[in-house]
Amino acid sequence: MSQPALQNDRFLRALNCESVDVTPVWMMRQAGRYLPEYRATREMAGDFLSLCKNTELACEVTLQPLERFPLDAAILFSDILTIPDAMGLGLYFETGEGPRFRKQVRTAADVEALPIVETASDLSYVTDAVRTIRRELNGRVPLIGFSGSPWTLATYMVEGGSSKDFRRAKAMAFDTPEIMHQLLDKLAESVIDYLNAQIKAGAQAVQIFDTWGGALSHAAYHEFSLAYMHKIVKGLIRENEGRKVPVILFTKNGGQWLESIAATGCDAAGLDWTTDIGSARQRVGQQIALQGNMDPTMLYASPNAIRAEVGRILESFGTGNGHVFNLGHGITPDVKPEHAGVFIEAVHELSASYHRS
Amino acid sequence: MSQPALQNDRFLRALNCESVDVTPVWMMRQAGRYLPEYRATREMAGDFLSLCKNTELACEVTLQPLERFPLDAAILFSDILTIPDAMGLGLYFETGEGPRFRKQVRTAADVEALPIVETASDLSYVTDAVRTIRRELNGRVPLIGFSGSPWTLATYMVEGGSSKDFRRAKAMAFDTPEIMHQLLDKLAESVIDYLNAQIKAGAQAVQIFDTWGGALSHAAYHEFSLAYMHKIVKGLIRENEGRKVPVILFTKNGGQWLESIAATGCDAAGLDWTTDIGSARQRVGQQIALQGNMDPTMLYASPNAIRAEVGRILESFGTGNGHVFNLGHGITPDVKPEHAGVFIEAVHELSASYHRS
Repeated sequence: MSQPALQNDRFLRALNCESVDVTPVWMMRQAGRYLPEYRATREMAGDFLSLCKNTELACEVTLQPLERFPLDAAILFSDILTIPDAMGLGLYFETGEGPRFRKQVRTAADVEALPIVETASDLSYVTDAVRTIRRELNGRVPLIGFSGSPWTLATYMVEGGSSKDFRRAKAMAFDTPEIMHQLLDKLAESVIDYLNAQIKAGAQAVQIFDTWGGALSHAAYHEFSLAYMHKIVKGLIRENEGRKVPVILFTKNGGQWLESIAATGCDAAGLDWTTDIGSARQRVGQQIALQGNMDPTMLYASPNAIRAEVGRILESFGTGNGHVFNLGHGITPDVKPEHAGVFIEAVHELSASYHRS
Repeated sequence: MSQPALQNDRFLRALNCESVDVTPVWMMRQAGRYLPEYRATREMAGDFLSLCKNTELACEVTLQPLERFPLDAAILFSDILTIPDAMGLGLYFETGEGPRFRKQVRTAADVEALPIVETASDLSYVTDAVRTIRRELNGRVPLIGFSGSPWTLATYMVEGGSSKDFRRAKAMAFDTPEIMHQLLDKLAESVIDYLNAQIKAGAQAVQIFDTWGGALSHAAYHEFSLAYMHKIVKGLIRENEGRKVPVILFTKNGGQWLESIAATGCDAAGLDWTTDIGSARQRVGQQIALQGNMDPTMLYASPNAIRAEVGRILESFGTGNGHVFNLGHGITPDVKPEHAGVFIEAVHELSASYHRS
């Protein structure tokens, strides 16, 4: 199926460290609860998981922020826990409690029993959504596919939901590393299949969300999280529709490991707000692009403060290529949509002077 | 008042980067809920705050872990929120909810109304506890005094308790930085007086706990947290009883800012477990000592895994001076005391070979 020409490719160009007119910007969780139109569609769907599994409604909420703001990319509306759900763990959401699984993964036998997920048969609702969104986007901006990292998925599967200290997942890693490695390996295989299926369905870039890698020690991060993201990067389709498909790795609290992240062969690293983006750029040079990194809490501040902070981050990055602007984590549910608008406009307006040749 | 000679000065020697026979070790929150004898004393006191304010019982729980384990330092049993409590905010603890304040600090007038705390009149129960503990320690190991950092205290005062994203404290910092700076300045003045009073009463080293500095961006950390710890370091009594009084700065999630922390003139930096201690040492050289940094969650793992992790951290630090072993954060309430014992013994046993000249 031939796709319409891309009208705005700033995002893909920046990920390839190519020149752009202004710095591209999108927001993690940009299709989300801070938008009243999202809340209305979600109400219609019933619950969060039904919304993810409903192709038309998932497409609708993916496009909602693009109707409001001049964003430079769309991101598939889905959840990082679709893979463990497809493995048969029974994902559900309790109000105010976050995700939960009916079955936990605690023993060698539990891990042994887990299937490697085949996206074509087990997660076709996701690739259906990708195809539908691409059709509806009609070349306006690129579409990002995504997955959770194996370690991040494993924490939810072992703990049975969210956790403060990941004591069960860490105890499995520390006491029976061979069991944890088997689990991570099955997850990595599943993620490779999952992301490649999204790419074949039309995702033009992919991001791996390693939300909880930053809870590990330096050594444990490399062994239990980064090694599996490295494996995934090596297993991905890197070119499609005649264009490179960039891979972004985002480890929250991973600023200290930027050099190791860059060495995986990814195209870009996502940075949270604790890392100075100018120093980060000096550390990795032109090896990879950088994505980030305004504190999402800044969106509770005044429009003037938001603009000043955008200016500060742009100045820290400086002139040159390879910056995709974003928040340092997902936008939070009760931010005023106007403040998100101020943020996005400020990026485009204030970045222009850094891109004049 | 003359004090008995110190029988074990490994901790103070290591903080001064002097040679030791084995690496000294203590644990943040070592007098705490994981010990059944602590829970019994706390029951007797009524609640947590009453325990902090009862000189004899605070002394008793301070000494409890030393009866069980060959720790190389004692730390005053108290809470970081004694200063805002003394400022009149009405600290209380709700079961399972963490600390709360009856009054919040939200406006310029709220900040204006806050007194600078004078330890001699407002917090004499703390200095009484220090004197009592020193007497009861009788030179066995040194006693550490402590305080929360101004930014960390400010987050609780503005939010009215714990917070996930510090949105109110950050909005004050971003929108009305002059009000936040006035608050931080009053806190820094109070902390200087508080720590100097602890030193005069007998604290032989002091640690500043910056639990929430790591939630700030690189720029905001330097402006709102580190600048005030720097001010405190400059205002402290640095020698007492004929010996240097070392200052340890501990910013949780502060590994990226180690060079800036070292530049304050502190004697040591506390590291959480995300930082590789060998790399940290290369970054700061002999400028400061390093304290840390085992993941406290490791104490849920088996004794063998605990010993292996202690060995790994010692190997990463390598031979030479300037290491105080600790956890990367406080010990958690439901760790088995025997596992803490395994940890402490492993540090002493496995470190000996790194200290042979």
